[in-house]
Amino acid sequence: MLQLYIGNKNYSSWSMRPWVLLRQAGIAFEEVPVRFDGFDANSQFKRRLKAVSPAGKVPVLVDGSLTIWDSLAIAEYLAETHPDKRLWPEDRAARAHARCVTAEMHSGFSALRSHCSMNIEARLPEVGAILWRDQAGVRADVQRLVEMWGELLAKYGGPMLFGQFSIADAFYAPVCMRLSTYGLPVPEAIAAYVQRVQQLPGVKAWIDGALAEHDFREFEEPYRLAPTR
Amino acid sequence: MLQLYIGNKNYSSWSMRPWVLLRQAGIAFEEVPVRFDGFDANSQFKRRLKAVSPAGKVPVLVDGSLTIWDSLAIAEYLAETHPDKRLWPEDRAARAHARCVTAEMHSGFSALRSHCSMNIEARLPEVGAILWRDQAGVRADVQRLVEMWGELLAKYGGPMLFGQFSIADAFYAPVCMRLSTYGLPVPEAIAAYVQRVQQLPGVKAWIDGALAEHDFREFEEPYRLAPTR
Ligand SMILES: N[C@@H](CCC(=O)N[C@@H](CS)C(=O)NCC(=O)O)C(=O)O
Ligand SMILES: N[C@@H](CCC(=O)N[C@@H](CS)C(=O)NCC(=O)O)C(=O)O
Repeated sequence: MLQLYIGNKNYSSWSMRPWVLLRQAGIAFEEVPVRFDGFDANSQFKRRLKAVSPAGKVPVLVDGSLTIWDSLAIAEYLAETHPDKRLWPEDRAARAHARCVTAEMHSGFSALRSHCSMNIEARLPEVGAILWRDQAGVRADVQRLVEMWGELLAKYGGPMLFGQFSIADAFYAPVCMRLSTYGLPVPEAIAAYVQRVQQLPGVKAWIDGALAEHDFREFEEPYRLAPTR
Repeated sequence: MLQLYIGNKNYSSWSMRPWVLLRQAGIAFEEVPVRFDGFDANSQFKRRLKAVSPAGKVPVLVDGSLTIWDSLAIAEYLAETHPDKRLWPEDRAARAHARCVTAEMHSGFSALRSHCSMNIEARLPEVGAILWRDQAGVRADVQRLVEMWGELLAKYGGPMLFGQFSIADAFYAPVCMRLSTYGLPVPEAIAAYVQRVQQLPGVKAWIDGALAEHDFREFEEPYRLAPTR
């Protein structure tokens, strides 16, 4: 059976992507949670991960003797090994675009990622308002999202970015969580997409897991001194 | 004919990847250079790019009515449309690993990328020595490269990371240029791989183009007040 190593569900945005993809596609897998306890060489986390993967990061997919240690490479591997699941759009042009937006996520949106770290159980609209006022990079990232999602929803007709659920939606699911946590302002049609993503069974299952963790990790919490609930 | 929009060859590491891939694979394409003149909304660069691509960045591949705007998505598109060129390794496990290291590059090595920006015509070993002394992140990134390349060259027997040239080598080609420009210390076997990459006809052709540019762009030059030659 496939094994997926993941970090804390509340915080680990990279882990969330392939987990949601597997779950949403109905591909059976065993989840191997590795608790975040810091990322220096001596942390439990790092020692545990380094034993499975040379990059020492989550997520890691293990398929028999094969170890795949990057979320995008995992997605491509699953698309190749499960063609019946149509994880990428079937149309060649749509597939090329889905890869563009997925790769753009993978290497971009650095302001949003660094200022609004994922924190599913938290509600931090005051922090979001300050970031929105002060951080032009965050505003630019959100503007690009709004433009991209708006175009895709119009072009492919929704409900997901390329019509049916695809890898692209899985890759933007953590961004949807961030928009909610920080209460960043987006137009109605975009907020509706965020809602739809959060209602996908695979995403809901991840959120439920995150809320059940109650595992406050200080170093992942730039904005809170203690959990709010 | 395919068209590839690229930035200055001396500086644009993202543009270099698909250009080298196309050239090295012998896929015909027309190059559309867009000179870097700054990245704000009113720059010529940005206005020109925004007219072709929603992300407003280079590289962009145009294939008829289809526009593909991320280097990794371009690589996957070329692999799909030119199966005879074997841009990814043929073996399924090797291909999965090639995607891991390529995606790891695409989203990682941020210390190396931000401190040692690509500058093919420059020789900056003094700057490199200071960065090496002061920047733990640069040392960690280089250590990861050394470990990764060492393992792959041993496993697949060289001369390239997965035996024959693949997308993975194209993605690490700009890193090879950085190691040379900043004179960062690497073991002999790794330096030999860097040399082999720089001698690939597709890479040589890009370097020749970069050296012929003589187009000093101040905002891309954190470490020089004037060109050194
Ligand atoms: N490009 C990687 C990024 C993975 C990543 O950065 N994961 C974080 C957790 S969300 C991690 O394991 N960090 C540990 C570290 O940086 O040492 C991917 O897509 O899988
Ligand atoms: N993830 C993109 C990154 C492209 C990128 O950042 N390109 C730079 C030039 S090397 C650029 O066009 N920057 C313009 C800007 O940031 O506005 C890719 O892989 O193609």
